[in-house]
Amino acid sequence: MRIGELSRRTGVPVPTIKYYVREGLLPAGRLTSPNQASYDDAHERRLRLIRALLDVGGLKVAAIADVLAAVDDPDQSVHKVLGVATDLIVPTYADEEPDAELDAELAAAREEVRELIARRGWLVDDGYPAAEALAAALAALERVGHGAFSSVLDAYADAAERVARADLAYVAGRAGLDDLVESVVVGTVLGDAVFASLRRLAQADVSARVYEGDEGDEGDEGDEGAESGSGRTTNGET
Amino acid sequence: MRIGELSRRTGVPVPTIKYYVREGLLPAGRLTSPNQASYDDAHERRLRLIRALLDVGGLKVAAIADVLAAVDDPDQSVHKVLGVATDLIVPTYADEEPDAELDAELAAAREEVRELIARRGWLVDDGYPAAEALAAALAALERVGHGAFSSVLDAYADAAERVARADLAYVAGRAGLDDLVESVVVGTVLGDAVFASLRRLAQADVSARVYEGDEGDEGDEGDEGAESGSGRTTNGET
Repeated sequence: MRIGELSRRTGVPVPTIKYYVREGLLPAGRLTSPNQASYDDAHERRLRLIRALLDVGGLKVAAIADVLAAVDDPDQSVHKVLGVATDLIVPTYADEEPDAELDAELAAAREEVRELIARRGWLVDDGYPAAEALAAALAALERVGHGAFSSVLDAYADAAERVARADLAYVAGRAGLDDLVESVVVGTVLGDAVFASLRRLAQADVSARVYEGDEGDEGDEGDEGAESGSGRTTNGET
Repeated sequence: MRIGELSRRTGVPVPTIKYYVREGLLPAGRLTSPNQASYDDAHERRLRLIRALLDVGGLKVAAIADVLAAVDDPDQSVHKVLGVATDLIVPTYADEEPDAELDAELAAAREEVRELIARRGWLVDDGYPAAEALAAALAALERVGHGAFSSVLDAYADAAERVARADLAYVAGRAGLDDLVESVVVGTVLGDAVFASLRRLAQADVSARVYEGDEGDEGDEGDEGAESGSGRTTNGET
């Protein structure tokens, strides 16, 4: 197809498509005449992937280039590409040199993360970027007077394990390696957005039941996923 | 304390503190002489909150001003402030006018979200921003050829309910209303970062077990949070 048709099908303006080609995000079309190129379904799919990473995943163009390079690497392994996606998609924290007090909080948070990983029996390396990102988030909570948030860490970890198993089950159902690797990247970026939205909806539900004076009369229909019979607001969750 | 001491305690440079005061994020200090102001513990705590929302939550200064206005509103209810936080923290999606085809995907995704909310029995309004954000993410998945991701939606929703119950249990343990509302905001923003990191760690664990040739020999220690005995990669999750 011509570039105009590609634009029409994807909703991406022609100049934007040309920009992605210049930046190396999208392979150039096949030249059919000195000033006309032809694009195929692979271009269309790649273009939709770029838009998803940009619009929903919130990645920058440079980060998208790195993710796509990992997807296109013939030596890719799923485990490796998952690592690349993690590096890019984990939010980066304050870059400035921390002072001694901040360092102490970060050191304590790192120890807490090490203990959590050991307690869960997770097979992850110490230097895994997500472990550092988690430590940074916990240190930030401590600094704003919410160190007690750690008490919910295992409930979060239970939920994260459930999501991770679902993610990998989804990925394992894909056909080829390319497709599988792309699924990991898409699922990681878009899965965050899906989960964050679901968390807000579930919070709104729990909040409506607890803070709007409806404390259980119709409290149990949505609860099939609960592991225990404990109430919504008891500390038995943690 | 003087502004220099406030800067030393929080690691935030003096010019940055003055900028936050000008932008209305931080109340001005109490004037003790024509050109000297005094700051107290409330300033220190607010400053740490601003930095956490900025550095870890990734919010912009204008969004932080809105969140803080909700925290400081004397007419706040927890349920309302949760709504404000949701509006600000849910990622915003492509603003451009969608064309007819995109509209069709979004309409289908909205219907899917309505069905999910009904199936879970969640007490949320139709117009809740997180519902729209979820629909946008699902439509984006459909557009990149990952509409099948919907098959993991209930596993995600189970996990989101677990996290939301832990969130509200944490919030309910805080003392005053101010503190409680601040907890909701901090927990919402930083909780996303905590969960995203934990999801990556749990993915790395599952990925290492499945894709690095270790398919279950030592597969069960980290599994106390699982609701069922189904394996890590079966479709029984969904």
